Amino acid sequence: MTATINNTDEARIRAVLDDQLRAVAERDPERAVAVYSADVVLYNLAPPLAHYGADARDAVAVRAWMATFDGPIRSEVRELKVTVHGDIAFCHGLRSMTATPAGSTESFTMWFRTTTCLRRIDGEWKITHEHESTPFYMDGSFLAATDLLP
Amino acid sequence: MTATINNTDEARIRAVLDDQLRAVAERDPERAVAVYSADVVLYNLAPPLAHYGADARDAVAVRAWMATFDGPIRSEVRELKVTVHGDIAFCHGLRSMTATPAGSTESFTMWFRTTTCLRRIDGEWKITHEHESTPFYMDGSFLAATDLLP
Repeated sequence: MTATINNTDEARIRAVLDDQLRAVAERDPERAVAVYSADVVLYNLAPPLAHYGADARDAVAVRAWMATFDGPIRSEVRELKVTVHGDIAFCHGLRSMTATPAGSTESFTMWFRTTTCLRRIDGEWKITHEHESTPFYMDGSFLAATDLLP
Repeated sequence: MTATINNTDEARIRAVLDDQLRAVAERDPERAVAVYSADVVLYNLAPPLAHYGADARDAVAVRAWMATFDGPIRSEVRELKVTVHGDIAFCHGLRSMTATPAGSTESFTMWFRTTTCLRRIDGEWKITHEHESTPFYMDGSFLAATDLLP
Protein backbone atom coordinates (compact mmCIF):
# COMPACT_ATOMS: atom_id res chain seq x y z
CA MET A 1 0.00 0.00 0.00
CA THR A 2 1.39 3.39 -0.92
CA ALA A 3 0.95 6.54 1.12
CA THR A 4 -2.21 8.52 0.50
CA ILE A 5 -1.48 11.93 -0.97
CA ASN A 6 -3.68 14.75 0.23
CA ASN A 7 -3.39 17.52 -2.35
CA THR A 8 -4.76 20.18 -0.03
CA ASP A 9 -2.18 19.35 2.62
CA GLU A 10 0.58 19.22 0.02
CA ALA A 11 -0.42 22.73 -1.12
CA ARG A 12 -0.41 23.94 2.52
CA ILE A 13 3.05 22.44 3.10
CA ARG A 14 4.45 24.00 -0.08
CA ALA A 15 3.04 27.34 1.13
CA VAL A 16 4.93 26.96 4.45
CA LEU A 17 8.20 26.31 2.59
CA ASP A 18 7.53 29.23 0.20
CA ASP A 19 6.76 31.54 3.11
CA GLN A 20 10.05 30.60 4.82
CA LEU A 21 12.06 31.44 1.67
CA ARG A 22 10.14 34.69 1.14
CA ALA A 23 10.83 35.69 4.77
CA VAL A 24 14.56 35.14 4.17
CA ALA A 25 14.45 37.03 0.84
CA GLU A 26 12.70 39.95 2.57
CA ARG A 27 15.10 39.81 5.56
CA ASP A 28 12.34 39.13 8.09
CA PRO A 29 13.97 36.89 10.77
CA GLU A 30 10.88 36.60 13.03
CA ARG A 31 8.79 35.26 10.13
CA ALA A 32 11.64 32.98 9.01
CA VAL A 33 11.73 31.16 12.38
CA ALA A 34 7.92 31.18 12.90
CA VAL A 35 7.69 28.09 10.64
CA TYR A 36 9.58 25.96 13.22
CA SER A 37 7.96 23.88 15.98
CA ALA A 38 9.06 24.43 19.60
CA ASP A 39 11.05 21.16 19.48
CA VAL A 40 12.60 21.67 16.01
CA VAL A 41 15.99 20.04 15.23
CA LEU A 42 18.06 21.83 12.55
CA TYR A 43 21.09 20.48 10.69
CA ASN A 44 22.47 23.62 9.01
CA LEU A 45 25.12 24.32 6.35
CA ALA A 46 27.38 25.77 9.08
CA PRO A 47 28.50 24.09 12.34
CA PRO A 48 27.58 22.93 14.95
CA LEU A 49 26.19 19.49 14.03
CA ALA A 50 22.70 20.51 15.23
CA HIS A 51 20.58 23.32 16.67
CA TYR A 52 17.69 22.40 18.98
CA GLY A 53 14.43 24.14 19.97
CA ALA A 54 14.84 27.72 21.24
CA ASP A 55 18.41 27.88 19.88
CA ALA A 56 17.10 26.94 16.41
CA ARG A 57 14.27 29.50 16.66
CA ASP A 58 16.59 32.37 17.65
CA ALA A 59 15.52 35.30 15.44
CA VAL A 60 18.44 37.40 16.78
CA ALA A 61 20.93 34.86 15.41
CA VAL A 62 19.07 34.77 12.06
CA ARG A 63 19.14 38.59 11.95
CA ALA A 64 22.92 38.55 12.59
CA TRP A 65 23.35 35.98 9.77
CA MET A 66 21.25 38.15 7.41
CA ALA A 67 23.46 41.15 8.28
CA THR A 68 26.44 39.37 6.69
CA PHE A 69 24.74 40.00 3.31
CA ASP A 70 23.71 43.19 1.51
CA GLY A 71 20.27 43.27 -0.15
CA PRO A 72 17.92 40.34 -0.78
CA ILE A 73 18.88 36.71 -0.10
CA ARG A 74 17.26 34.88 -3.01
CA SER A 75 16.43 31.18 -3.33
CA GLU A 76 15.50 28.88 -6.19
CA VAL A 77 13.99 25.41 -5.65
CA ARG A 78 14.31 22.37 -7.94
CA GLU A 79 13.00 18.80 -7.77
CA LEU A 80 10.93 19.47 -4.64
CA LYS A 81 9.03 16.29 -3.69
CA VAL A 82 6.45 16.40 -0.89
CA THR A 83 5.20 13.19 0.76
CA VAL A 84 2.32 13.63 3.22
CA HIS A 85 0.18 11.17 5.16
CA GLY A 86 -2.18 12.20 7.92
CA ASP A 87 -0.37 14.57 10.29
CA ILE A 88 3.23 14.16 9.13
CA ALA A 89 5.11 15.01 5.96
CA PHE A 90 8.60 15.00 4.53
CA CYS A 91 10.02 16.99 1.61
CA HIS A 92 13.31 16.91 -0.25
CA GLY A 93 14.83 18.89 -3.09
CA LEU A 94 17.67 21.06 -4.27
CA ARG A 95 17.87 24.74 -3.38
CA SER A 96 20.08 27.62 -4.39
CA MET A 97 20.96 30.72 -2.43
CA THR A 98 22.07 33.88 -4.22
CA ALA A 99 23.36 36.76 -2.10
CA THR A 100 25.98 39.50 -1.91
CA PRO A 101 28.37 39.42 1.07
CA ALA A 102 28.20 42.68 3.06
CA GLY A 103 30.67 45.18 1.64
CA SER A 104 31.14 43.22 -1.60
CA THR A 105 29.86 44.13 -5.06
CA GLU A 106 29.85 40.50 -6.27
CA SER A 107 26.99 38.10 -5.56
CA PHE A 108 27.47 34.32 -5.31
CA THR A 109 25.12 31.41 -5.97
CA MET A 110 25.45 28.09 -4.16
CA TRP A 111 23.32 24.95 -4.66
CA PHE A 112 22.65 22.59 -1.76
CA ARG A 113 20.33 19.75 -0.71
CA THR A 114 17.37 20.25 1.65
CA THR A 115 15.21 17.78 3.55
CA THR A 116 12.31 19.23 5.54
CA CYS A 117 10.05 17.24 7.89
CA LEU A 118 6.77 18.58 9.23
CA ARG A 119 4.06 17.71 11.73
CA ARG A 120 0.54 19.12 11.94
CA ILE A 121 0.42 20.67 15.42
CA ASP A 122 -2.84 22.26 16.65
CA GLY A 123 -4.10 22.29 13.06
CA GLU A 124 -1.02 24.03 11.62
CA TRP A 125 1.85 22.50 9.64
CA LYS A 126 5.14 23.24 11.42
CA ILE A 127 8.69 22.29 10.45
CA THR A 128 10.02 19.92 13.12
CA HIS A 129 13.26 19.06 11.31
CA GLU A 130 15.33 20.67 8.56
CA HIS A 131 18.56 19.32 7.05
CA GLU A 132 20.58 21.47 4.62
CA SER A 133 23.97 20.46 3.24
CA THR A 134 26.53 20.31 0.51
CA PRO A 135 28.56 17.13 0.04
CA PHE A 136 32.35 17.37 0.38
CA TYR A 137 35.18 16.30 -1.94
CA MET A 138 36.82 13.04 -0.91
CA ASP A 139 39.96 13.76 -2.95
CA GLY A 140 42.00 14.52 0.17
CA SER A 141 41.03 18.23 0.13
CA PHE A 142 37.93 17.81 2.37
CA LEU A 143 36.55 20.94 0.68
CA ALA A 144 32.77 21.54 0.75
CA ALA A 145 31.38 21.01 -2.76
CA THR A 146 29.83 24.49 -3.10
CA ASP A 147 30.29 24.55 -6.89
CA LEU A 148 27.84 21.79 -7.89
CA LEU A 149 24.89 22.52 -10.18
CA PRO A 150 21.63 20.53 -10.39
CA MET B 1 -3.47 17.27 17.01
CA THR B 2 -0.12 15.50 17.18
CA ALA B 3 0.90 12.55 15.06
CA THR B 4 -0.09 9.13 16.29
CA ILE B 5 2.93 7.02 17.23
CA ASN B 6 2.69 3.35 16.41
CA ASN B 7 5.28 1.57 18.55
CA THR B 8 5.27 -1.58 16.46
CA ASP B 9 5.99 0.39 13.29
CA GLU B 10 8.67 2.41 15.09
CA ALA B 11 10.35 -0.86 16.12
CA ARG B 12 10.14 -2.14 12.52
CA ILE B 13 11.67 1.08 11.18
CA ARG B 14 14.50 0.99 13.73
CA ALA B 15 15.15 -2.61 12.63
CA VAL B 16 15.47 -1.46 8.98
CA LEU B 17 18.03 1.20 9.97
CA ASP B 18 19.92 -1.29 12.18
CA ASP B 19 19.99 -3.83 9.37
CA GLN B 20 21.42 -1.26 6.96
CA LEU B 21 24.27 -0.42 9.38
CA ARG B 22 24.95 -4.11 10.08
CA ALA B 23 25.12 -4.79 6.34
CA VAL B 24 27.75 -2.04 5.99
CA ALA B 25 29.70 -3.31 9.04
CA GLU B 26 29.69 -6.82 7.57
CA ARG B 27 30.61 -5.52 4.08
CA ASP B 28 27.47 -6.90 2.43
CA PRO B 29 26.63 -4.39 -0.37
CA GLU B 30 23.55 -6.23 -1.70
CA ARG B 31 21.93 -6.19 1.77
CA ALA B 32 22.98 -2.55 2.29
CA VAL B 33 21.05 -1.37 -0.80
CA ALA B 34 18.07 -3.75 -0.30
CA VAL B 35 16.60 -1.25 2.21
CA TYR B 36 16.06 1.33 -0.57
CA SER B 37 12.85 1.75 -2.61
CA ALA B 38 13.06 1.64 -6.43
CA ASP B 39 12.60 5.44 -6.54
CA VAL B 40 14.98 6.31 -3.66
CA VAL B 41 16.73 9.72 -3.64
CA LEU B 42 20.07 9.82 -1.79
CA TYR B 43 22.01 12.88 -0.66
CA ASN B 44 25.39 11.40 0.31
CA LEU B 45 28.50 12.69 2.10
CA ALA B 46 30.38 12.67 -1.24
CA PRO B 47 29.34 14.38 -4.52
CA PRO B 48 27.25 14.51 -6.66
CA LEU B 49 24.36 16.47 -5.10
CA ALA B 50 22.06 13.43 -5.44
CA HIS B 51 21.79 9.80 -6.53
CA TYR B 52 18.46 8.55 -7.90
CA GLY B 53 16.82 5.12 -8.17
CA ALA B 54 18.95 2.42 -9.82
CA ASP B 55 22.09 4.58 -9.46
CA ALA B 56 21.45 4.85 -5.70
CA ARG B 57 20.80 1.11 -5.41
CA ASP B 58 24.02 0.15 -7.24
CA ALA B 59 25.59 -2.61 -5.11
CA VAL B 60 28.69 -2.62 -7.36
CA ALA B 61 29.39 1.03 -6.46
CA VAL B 62 28.81 0.28 -2.76
CA ARG B 63 31.22 -2.69 -3.02
CA ALA B 64 33.86 -0.40 -4.61
CA TRP B 65 33.37 2.13 -1.77
CA MET B 66 33.73 -0.66 0.84
CA ALA B 67 36.97 -1.75 -0.86
CA THR B 68 38.54 1.62 0.07
CA PHE B 69 38.55 0.39 3.70
CA ASP B 70 40.19 -2.59 5.40
CA GLY B 71 38.09 -4.58 7.89
CA PRO B 72 34.72 -3.65 9.37
CA ILE B 73 33.05 -0.26 8.80
CA ARG B 74 31.49 0.45 12.18
CA SER B 75 28.71 2.91 13.06
CA GLU B 76 27.36 4.41 16.25
CA VAL B 77 23.99 6.18 16.44
CA ARG B 78 22.97 8.98 18.85
CA GLU B 79 19.76 10.99 19.35
CA LEU B 80 17.80 8.91 16.82
CA LYS B 81 14.21 10.18 16.70
CA VAL B 82 11.61 8.28 14.67
CA THR B 83 8.29 9.91 13.71
CA VAL B 84 5.75 7.58 12.07
CA HIS B 85 2.14 8.03 10.99
CA GLY B 86 0.27 5.54 8.85
CA ASP B 87 2.44 4.55 5.90
CA ILE B 88 5.20 7.17 6.10
CA ALA B 89 7.96 7.94 8.58
CA PHE B 90 10.94 10.19 9.03
CA CYS B 91 13.99 9.75 11.28
CA HIS B 92 16.89 11.99 12.21
CA GLY B 93 19.97 11.61 14.35
CA LEU B 94 23.73 11.73 14.56
CA ARG B 95 25.87 8.87 13.32
CA SER B 96 29.56 8.01 13.44
CA MET B 97 31.57 5.93 11.04
CA THR B 98 34.81 4.27 12.18
CA ALA B 99 36.97 2.60 9.56
CA THR B 100 40.55 2.00 8.43
CA PRO B 101 41.51 3.25 4.94
CA ALA B 102 42.83 0.40 2.78
CA GLY B 103 46.57 0.06 3.27
CA SER B 104 46.61 2.20 6.43
CA THR B 105 47.11 1.01 10.01
CA GLU B 106 45.19 3.97 11.50
CA SER B 107 41.41 4.06 11.79
CA PHE B 108 39.41 7.30 11.77
CA THR B 109 36.05 8.23 13.30
CA MET B 110 33.81 10.89 11.77
CA TRP B 111 30.42 12.11 13.09
CA PHE B 112 27.74 13.32 10.69
CA ARG B 113 23.99 14.05 10.54
CA THR B 114 21.46 11.64 9.03
CA THR B 115 17.84 12.10 7.99
CA THR B 116 16.03 9.01 6.71
CA CYS B 117 12.50 9.00 5.22
CA LEU B 118 10.52 5.81 4.67
CA ARG B 119 7.30 4.63 3.07
CA ARG B 120 5.47 1.37 3.65
CA ILE B 121 5.40 -0.25 0.19
CA ASP B 122 3.58 -3.60 -0.28
CA GLY B 123 3.63 -4.03 3.51
CA GLU B 124 7.37 -3.42 3.93
CA TRP B 125 9.10 -0.29 5.22
CA LYS B 126 11.55 0.96 2.56
CA ILE B 127 13.89 3.95 2.65
CA THR B 128 12.74 6.41 -0.05
CA HIS B 129 15.12 9.21 0.93
CA GLU B 130 18.37 9.44 2.87
CA HIS B 131 20.37 12.60 3.60
CA GLU B 132 23.83 12.35 5.21
CA SER B 133 26.12 15.33 5.74
CA THR B 134 28.67 17.25 7.72
CA PRO B 135 28.38 21.03 7.92
CA PHE B 136 31.30 23.11 6.59
CA TYR B 137 33.37 25.88 8.15
CA MET B 138 32.35 29.36 7.03
CA ASP B 139 35.69 30.87 8.11
CA GLY B 140 36.86 31.24 4.51
CA SER B 141 38.39 27.74 4.46
CA PHE B 142 35.21 25.98 3.16
CA LEU B 143 36.52 22.81 4.85
CA ALA B 144 34.04 20.06 5.72
CA ALA B 145 33.60 19.93 9.51
CA THR B 146 34.63 16.29 9.93
CA ASP B 147 36.02 16.86 13.45
CA LEU B 148 32.77 17.65 15.30
CA LEU B 149 31.58 15.48 18.21
CA PRO B 150 27.99 15.09 19.46
